[in-house]
Amino acid sequence: MPHDHTFTEEERRGVYRAIYERRDVRSEFLPTPVPDDVLCRILDAAHHAPSVGFMQPWDFLVIRDKAVRQAVHANFVRAKNKAAELYEGEKRSIYDNLKLEGILDAPVNVCVTCDSNRSKGSGLGRQTDPATGLYSTVCAIQNLWLAARAESLGVGWVSIMDLDELKATLAVPPHLTIVAYLCVGYTSAFHSQPELEASGWESREQLAKLIHFETWGRHQEEQGR
Amino acid sequence: MPHDHTFTEEERRGVYRAIYERRDVRSEFLPTPVPDDVLCRILDAAHHAPSVGFMQPWDFLVIRDKAVRQAVHANFVRAKNKAAELYEGEKRSIYDNLKLEGILDAPVNVCVTCDSNRSKGSGLGRQTDPATGLYSTVCAIQNLWLAARAESLGVGWVSIMDLDELKATLAVPPHLTIVAYLCVGYTSAFHSQPELEASGWESREQLAKLIHFETWGRHQEEQGR
Repeated sequence: MPHDHTFTEEERRGVYRAIYERRDVRSEFLPTPVPDDVLCRILDAAHHAPSVGFMQPWDFLVIRDKAVRQAVHANFVRAKNKAAELYEGEKRSIYDNLKLEGILDAPVNVCVTCDSNRSKGSGLGRQTDPATGLYSTVCAIQNLWLAARAESLGVGWVSIMDLDELKATLAVPPHLTIVAYLCVGYTSAFHSQPELEASGWESREQLAKLIHFETWGRHQEEQGR
Repeated sequence: MPHDHTFTEEERRGVYRAIYERRDVRSEFLPTPVPDDVLCRILDAAHHAPSVGFMQPWDFLVIRDKAVRQAVHANFVRAKNKAAELYEGEKRSIYDNLKLEGILDAPVNVCVTCDSNRSKGSGLGRQTDPATGLYSTVCAIQNLWLAARAESLGVGWVSIMDLDELKATLAVPPHLTIVAYLCVGYTSAFHSQPELEASGWESREQLAKLIHFETWGRHQEEQGR
């Protein structure tokens, strides 16, 4: 490989640290303001995600206003209580004790939308799979999340919300899709494992069970390949 | 911030390098085999993506077999020719000259699927938005892509394919969703800008136009905030 394309060991370690030490943060947000230049860096990282046909279908709503966040939080509380009805016994007990968002604790919220009608990209790559516009937007979100970790910023993705009501609160045009509502801020700590794992909600799957070779269901590579 | 949560300057630079120097690679793949330990590292990076309710809805099919890749490539060629009918004039001329995949050039292909019926996570976070399982899978793909860049591996995402036919070729169970078909390999170079930008297919949007404050459409922050 040409030298200038390779990463130093420390640069490579940074990438893996961001991937392994990234957490979905809910409880540890500090009120410390996020400087504009840092916020710009993580949004620009998002904007440099891959997108189908170079479509760039995303928009970013930066929300600091307390009244707006209170309305969003009320939406979350209603949705969380409604979803609780699905769970019983021990699962319900764990559920009731989960803290699932930091909407009011984090100083910045970022709502990320996808405009599937955007003409940029001229439809390249989308005819066989219209969902690729949404997928591009998620790539942007993951870029933001990893850049945030490198900046010591925590991010939490809140999906427990009535999305039509959220659209109305934020005046998002009806034809757009709200892909994510993110809480962003400095944190007192990053947990060493996902909270849903630590709380007993769910365990991590063994990677080997999720890898197939050549065709579905073959979990071992052929001998003598 | 506690010292052990912060990144060194070089680690942080690594994260931004991966984000800004990642490319959708189509033409520069080298036949050099990808060592198993390197492939494992990028798949494990994918497996450590965030997922809704810790659902981990992804599977990874690792494809090296030439006959399988030839069948996939034939699928791509048919889909690309069909999609060409949409374009005329200069756009058609650019389209015809775009190389859009490296299925046979890259030594490894990885098909990433999403199982929306997987019981892991017990539905947490998915009741208000069932698409979040797909979104989790895309986060895994972006982790893989960035880890690959840090390993000097190029990745290209091919979405121009008949996905039902691809499912049949790879024996993917009908209820799963194929989210991405990726070409993976070492490369002779990484372009300094996206090929779709360099070829005149599409331009990069100004980030400022995509950022809104508090509610949709307000592109300036309030004075005196």
